[in-house]
Amino acid sequence: MINSLLLPELRDLLAEGDRDELAEVLTELHPASIAEFSEGLESKEIWELLDCAPVDRQAEIFGFYSPHRQDELVDGIGRQRMGHLLEAMPHDERVDLLKRLDDKIVESLLPLVANADRQDIRKLLTYPEGSAGSVMTTDYASLPADISVSEAIAQLRQQAPATETIYYVYVLDDQRHLLGFVSLSDLIVAKSSALVRDVMQQQVISVDVQEDQEEVARKLAKYDFLAIPVVDEQHRLVGIVTHDDVADVLQAEATEDFQLGSAIAPLAKGYYHSGVWTLYQRRVGWLLVLVLVNLVSSGVIAAYEETLQAMIALAFFLPLLIDSGGNAGSQIATLIVRALATKEVTLRHWYRIVGKELLVGASLGLTMAAASFLLGVFRGGIEVGLIVGISMICIIVFTNLFGALLPFALTRLKFDPAVASSPLITTVADAAGLLLYFAIATRVIATLGAI
Amino acid sequence: MINSLLLPELRDLLAEGDRDELAEVLTELHPASIAEFSEGLESKEIWELLDCAPVDRQAEIFGFYSPHRQDELVDGIGRQRMGHLLEAMPHDERVDLLKRLDDKIVESLLPLVANADRQDIRKLLTYPEGSAGSVMTTDYASLPADISVSEAIAQLRQQAPATETIYYVYVLDDQRHLLGFVSLSDLIVAKSSALVRDVMQQQVISVDVQEDQEEVARKLAKYDFLAIPVVDEQHRLVGIVTHDDVADVLQAEATEDFQLGSAIAPLAKGYYHSGVWTLYQRRVGWLLVLVLVNLVSSGVIAAYEETLQAMIALAFFLPLLIDSGGNAGSQIATLIVRALATKEVTLRHWYRIVGKELLVGASLGLTMAAASFLLGVFRGGIEVGLIVGISMICIIVFTNLFGALLPFALTRLKFDPAVASSPLITTVADAAGLLLYFAIATRVIATLGAI
Repeated sequence: MINSLLLPELRDLLAEGDRDELAEVLTELHPASIAEFSEGLESKEIWELLDCAPVDRQAEIFGFYSPHRQDELVDGIGRQRMGHLLEAMPHDERVDLLKRLDDKIVESLLPLVANADRQDIRKLLTYPEGSAGSVMTTDYASLPADISVSEAIAQLRQQAPATETIYYVYVLDDQRHLLGFVSLSDLIVAKSSALVRDVMQQQVISVDVQEDQEEVARKLAKYDFLAIPVVDEQHRLVGIVTHDDVADVLQAEATEDFQLGSAIAPLAKGYYHSGVWTLYQRRVGWLLVLVLVNLVSSGVIAAYEETLQAMIALAFFLPLLIDSGGNAGSQIATLIVRALATKEVTLRHWYRIVGKELLVGASLGLTMAAASFLLGVFRGGIEVGLIVGISMICIIVFTNLFGALLPFALTRLKFDPAVASSPLITTVADAAGLLLYFAIATRVIATLGAI
Repeated sequence: MINSLLLPELRDLLAEGDRDELAEVLTELHPASIAEFSEGLESKEIWELLDCAPVDRQAEIFGFYSPHRQDELVDGIGRQRMGHLLEAMPHDERVDLLKRLDDKIVESLLPLVANADRQDIRKLLTYPEGSAGSVMTTDYASLPADISVSEAIAQLRQQAPATETIYYVYVLDDQRHLLGFVSLSDLIVAKSSALVRDVMQQQVISVDVQEDQEEVARKLAKYDFLAIPVVDEQHRLVGIVTHDDVADVLQAEATEDFQLGSAIAPLAKGYYHSGVWTLYQRRVGWLLVLVLVNLVSSGVIAAYEETLQAMIALAFFLPLLIDSGGNAGSQIATLIVRALATKEVTLRHWYRIVGKELLVGASLGLTMAAASFLLGVFRGGIEVGLIVGISMICIIVFTNLFGALLPFALTRLKFDPAVASSPLITTVADAAGLLLYFAIATRVIATLGAI
């Protein structure tokens, strides 16, 4: 986000070279605010600005620039400055940055970083995208089990500047196996002569390094944790995922579901930074499927050409019937997809949903049938009204049930239920709706004709 | 969420009356896990179970039951047990519970609660739904400015059991004005003889008690805070909003946007606990609007009845053209609505979006036009192909631009842009699409007829 409130002042101070005043600004404001206020500067100016703060502070501020801006800052004069900054950055943030950059740039940056950090980076880069390992940080606080609480607090004072949080502390043995967990709050309240082993909790909720990041975020949120430990298959601590990643992960997953739900292939960079060609590619697929599906729906109409020719008023209600089916279906699909995503509903609830949605579908169908009967009579007489009304209730009941069950079926088949999108339902609603409509029309015409 | 893994064991222990074993389970597992494992028990059994733990632990566990279950637990034998539990519950959670209950139940519960807690509850109940005041808690840690760091830590040890967090501490004067902020981490690292005044940060980012909860959650997430202070108009501290509320608020807001986006009036209780009648009411509105709008679209088709009669093949492509318009429009509307919600795009970006979406729309339109030209030729000959192809590009470009701009217009007019939903766009795409289609058909027929 760009906020230009302080931009002129920052530019003036930079032009005057008033490093003292700039250093004060950089110390007093929150790093996120500094990033926000200076996002509008040129990359060169941002480096001049950052230069007025110690490297730890620079690293903090750097992490709050938008991903797009961070990438720009690494370019040009940024390259040689990034060495020390990478050492000072939180371990998860710097890996996120390096993952976005070209391999060539990464290879030119890594030699500038101290050996220990370089190894840490290479390790974190190996975890697959979307896993706990890919979002965790390795700068956690840890303690041995057999020291006293006062010694523990003294050790934490040492660790504090280098760790992301000292509020949650993990108790490890020599091989880094996770023995227990103690919060700083517990330590403060405990007797200073007690042993860490005796005040720690032994039942520790942890996640596997391969676990899906969305699951990790939900677990963190569920237990109200500040951080959750990440362990490897030998139950050795390899990192922690902290609370500030929860909002980001859940937001990103919701955005992806929104996009899938409108039949858009997920955009890696977000809408604003995606170019025309990317947007085109991500959207054109499903639209073309519509054309293919229309081979069926235009075929249905063509098959009933004579009926339509004989009663042209039937064409007036084509938009109404297919839109109603599509909308009723996507309403319920959205409700179910979201309920599955937030774990409000699980797979085994499907049969209860069927019962409920038969009732909801019938009620909606009846209401809609009444309204469209009136519209049909108004536009084409009683016969048309009957045809439209009867078709409407059949279409709504069918598409509503289809929209309710599709997300379950997709989940069962290991697809993301979020693709149970409006367009997918639209196409099914089209074909089924047209078939129902013309079948009912033919029947009603024959019956009324025979009277 | 119900997890029946331990359910039989819990039932056995309850039947045997093995209170020691139950007490151990209640101490060793995380409160969230206990709630999860016991959610499947009867309310009476849950109270028996909780009875084996001290009241503070009971309050912790109680907070992790689903809202629906909490409401049930208050009923029946729960009523007289709730007094002490309410005193021990986090102040924000107990208010959330009371807000969901009937006023009569609340009035019968309040006399059971100690006077100070009762006043706190009544105060918190007055804040409007969705405001910072309605999600904040009043059990925060605070310190005066003129004590030493070691005295501060001693005071925090006293406050720890009664506060939601001691990691963030607010420094107040006698009238509770917010003077500054200090983290427990800062206190641990500081010299023990230093004054709180000298180690605290004076620039404190706070929110107003009336501020929208979504804004508060985004601010917490943006600055990676554990908690954010809530102040009244005199800048006096009235509460804090903690990190564990961020995920809940953002999830709830995303769910609301999903529902609005499918033209469903937001469901207060979630899908699973909403009855058939509620679901019917929340969905029927927009579906009926579709019928009304069809007064226009059926009118358009009726107006061109002769054209249609003369070239019945035009009816084959009605579903394709209106669906394509609707889907292209709702794709882009979803992208923009989400980008606005996550602040990736702001109102003043609208003109850039117009430029970009003219290009994307034209590219999508051309591709779709080519595909539907072929389909048109296949079903009805070259003339129909031309009509369908030309109509397609016009419809896609128009609905794409409309879908891109609608969220901005809605935001500008102070509506929630999330209502720029598929159904709203569908209806516009219908009417506009039909008008374009028949206008183009008439023109092409006239032109080709004249050759």
